[in-house]
Amino acid sequence: MVSEYMHELGSKKSTIRDIFEYGRKRVAEVGRENVFDFSIGNPNVPCPAKVNETIKKIVSGNFGENIIHGYTPAAGLPRLRVKISEYIEAKFGFKTGAENIFVTSGAAHGLVATIKALAEKGDEFIAFAPFFPEYRCFVEAAGAKFNVVPAKIEDFQIDFDKLEESVTPNLKGVIINSPNNPTGTVYSEDTLKKLTEFLCDKQKKYGHPIYIIADEPYRDIAFDDVDIKYIPKIYDNTIVIYSYSKSLSVPGERIGYIAVSERADKHREIFDAIAGATRISGHVNPPSLFQYVILECMDEKSDISIYKKNRDLLYNALSESGFTCVKPQGAFYLFPQSPESDSRKFCDRAKELDILLVPGDDFGCEGHFRLSYCMETSMIERAIPVFEKLAKQYE
Amino acid sequence: MVSEYMHELGSKKSTIRDIFEYGRKRVAEVGRENVFDFSIGNPNVPCPAKVNETIKKIVSGNFGENIIHGYTPAAGLPRLRVKISEYIEAKFGFKTGAENIFVTSGAAHGLVATIKALAEKGDEFIAFAPFFPEYRCFVEAAGAKFNVVPAKIEDFQIDFDKLEESVTPNLKGVIINSPNNPTGTVYSEDTLKKLTEFLCDKQKKYGHPIYIIADEPYRDIAFDDVDIKYIPKIYDNTIVIYSYSKSLSVPGERIGYIAVSERADKHREIFDAIAGATRISGHVNPPSLFQYVILECMDEKSDISIYKKNRDLLYNALSESGFTCVKPQGAFYLFPQSPESDSRKFCDRAKELDILLVPGDDFGCEGHFRLSYCMETSMIERAIPVFEKLAKQYE
Repeated sequence: MVSEYMHELGSKKSTIRDIFEYGRKRVAEVGRENVFDFSIGNPNVPCPAKVNETIKKIVSGNFGENIIHGYTPAAGLPRLRVKISEYIEAKFGFKTGAENIFVTSGAAHGLVATIKALAEKGDEFIAFAPFFPEYRCFVEAAGAKFNVVPAKIEDFQIDFDKLEESVTPNLKGVIINSPNNPTGTVYSEDTLKKLTEFLCDKQKKYGHPIYIIADEPYRDIAFDDVDIKYIPKIYDNTIVIYSYSKSLSVPGERIGYIAVSERADKHREIFDAIAGATRISGHVNPPSLFQYVILECMDEKSDISIYKKNRDLLYNALSESGFTCVKPQGAFYLFPQSPESDSRKFCDRAKELDILLVPGDDFGCEGHFRLSYCMETSMIERAIPVFEKLAKQYE
Repeated sequence: MVSEYMHELGSKKSTIRDIFEYGRKRVAEVGRENVFDFSIGNPNVPCPAKVNETIKKIVSGNFGENIIHGYTPAAGLPRLRVKISEYIEAKFGFKTGAENIFVTSGAAHGLVATIKALAEKGDEFIAFAPFFPEYRCFVEAAGAKFNVVPAKIEDFQIDFDKLEESVTPNLKGVIINSPNNPTGTVYSEDTLKKLTEFLCDKQKKYGHPIYIIADEPYRDIAFDDVDIKYIPKIYDNTIVIYSYSKSLSVPGERIGYIAVSERADKHREIFDAIAGATRISGHVNPPSLFQYVILECMDEKSDISIYKKNRDLLYNALSESGFTCVKPQGAFYLFPQSPESDSRKFCDRAKELDILLVPGDDFGCEGHFRLSYCMETSMIERAIPVFEKLAKQYE
């Protein structure tokens, strides 16, 4: 009587949401200071002061024509698109005309539109484990096949032998996410060089373009001066998805953009198809007030020093307690190995100590667990002795 | 190389957008005071002062945890859903629990999610001409068949003989839109009584539920104390789609809700399927700041007296010039008959006088044209002699 597929998508409880709800319950029972909820990636660093100042300035203005809350073009305000285009050129030294920028309601929206725009019947899209679980739904909902390349757990770079085994002539797109959720890994220059060479070879072999979809919501959450390459400079068939959610700490406001590389095969057709895909997603325009905010605050960044401090604290403490973990260079996640192979069981044991973690299975990578560390440092400090206690159970 | 369907959806120029762009060009050429653009429905009445005051208050608060711009649950803040539920009960005397309210990014988003949630292979959805053109894309993109019941041009109520001819046992949903875009018509009590009886009969005959999707973005733009029935009170299988775009004059901010009637067959399954459908549309949550705004401003309404004044002015002037037009009781549109049967040709002639109109064909109803009157009254006053001139060409 209802769409079975939509019902399944909507009623299957997400592990992260379940943990989140359990956390709220436990807070009520034992107090906030005794629950160590590492399950959600809701940035805790406040937005730059300029964001709220800009909002106040905008809504205090004299806008008789009701411009600030009015409809905008579907792809965003023309001058916002121009400004994003100029920003990209200034920051990365790569020209992307405003006509190739589509302002979206966040990165998820950009990903869905891009995948739908590219996907034809029989196409395949690849992601590298561990990956953001929604990728699978986004690809499958577009009628395409989702292929996972197993993780290279030593460093979470790419295992090229496994990639070779995974590709078929139907490969249409490769989703990369660097810095990565859930590992925090940034792809090295070497990884990207090999990946782009690999894809160029396959394009030649299969006689059709293979697109990189560079999902970059964490681009501006990076530490240790790590160099995050701008993919369109090294691979022509690239579509970049960006979000201001993390850089400005405004994830609930839903604003980001798609930048289709001018060097990409059929880039105008892709752009138009993205417009078509957003139309049937119920998109009318990205939230208007925040388009005006981004116009003024594009250069602003939230203070990420807290994330770095949290990363160091948590990474060092977990390592000292005996956990094996790749040190992340970006985002705000750690993805350590579980001390028992069934990471769900491990997370259940952690839960008994009120440490809330997400099992790696959800990200297509068993035997690991994810911690978000976008939270108050004091909570991490309080959690460290509890992690030590947990580790002792496995000695 | 790209999805042909998405490309077609995205590259086919919309007539309204074409006219809009032409209007901008003409404004540059002959001056704003000489162009009479009746093509777009962008509310010109400012939002209630409380909206911007609330925004200022919210962003001036001390929100150390960055709550106001943070993620919310996908279906909206729990207390916003409760408040909407209470508002519906107080206003319409109809109970709809908060668990049946899904806060959306506007009405289009709500429609897409609802149609996708309901549509199974082979299903049909009906709309009554003239209708909002995106309905067709929304239904077809969900893989269902879109059937149009021809217009009853005397009064734009429902032609039940034509409805009878249109329905098949595959009928899953009926989209109604009262007050209507593009006619401004409000369905009478008699029309709704006949429609609900008709659908009850068909449900019995076909042995399955037929849902009314009540698309109500214009509910609060109504004149002459017209009584707009709350459909769930008269028909159990109803899903209401609402938007704050028009009532608060904030169409660019994208916020509204879906209310699934508790009396509807499989209402919990429908709600879950709606959640699933939003997930693959790239929805994460409705814009967060505006969720807090709606919490405070739900009772507010924009001053619609300007729309009423404009309606009276334009309706009277057009009638006196010899145009035949059903007097609308809501929304901010007029849908007069074209003095020549090819309304595109008529709109082209109007365009020569810098009057910009939308041909009725776009709304599934030939021989008519649409005017939006959500604009400064002075522009309408300036346009009246030009309409007289235009009418004279047909004498």
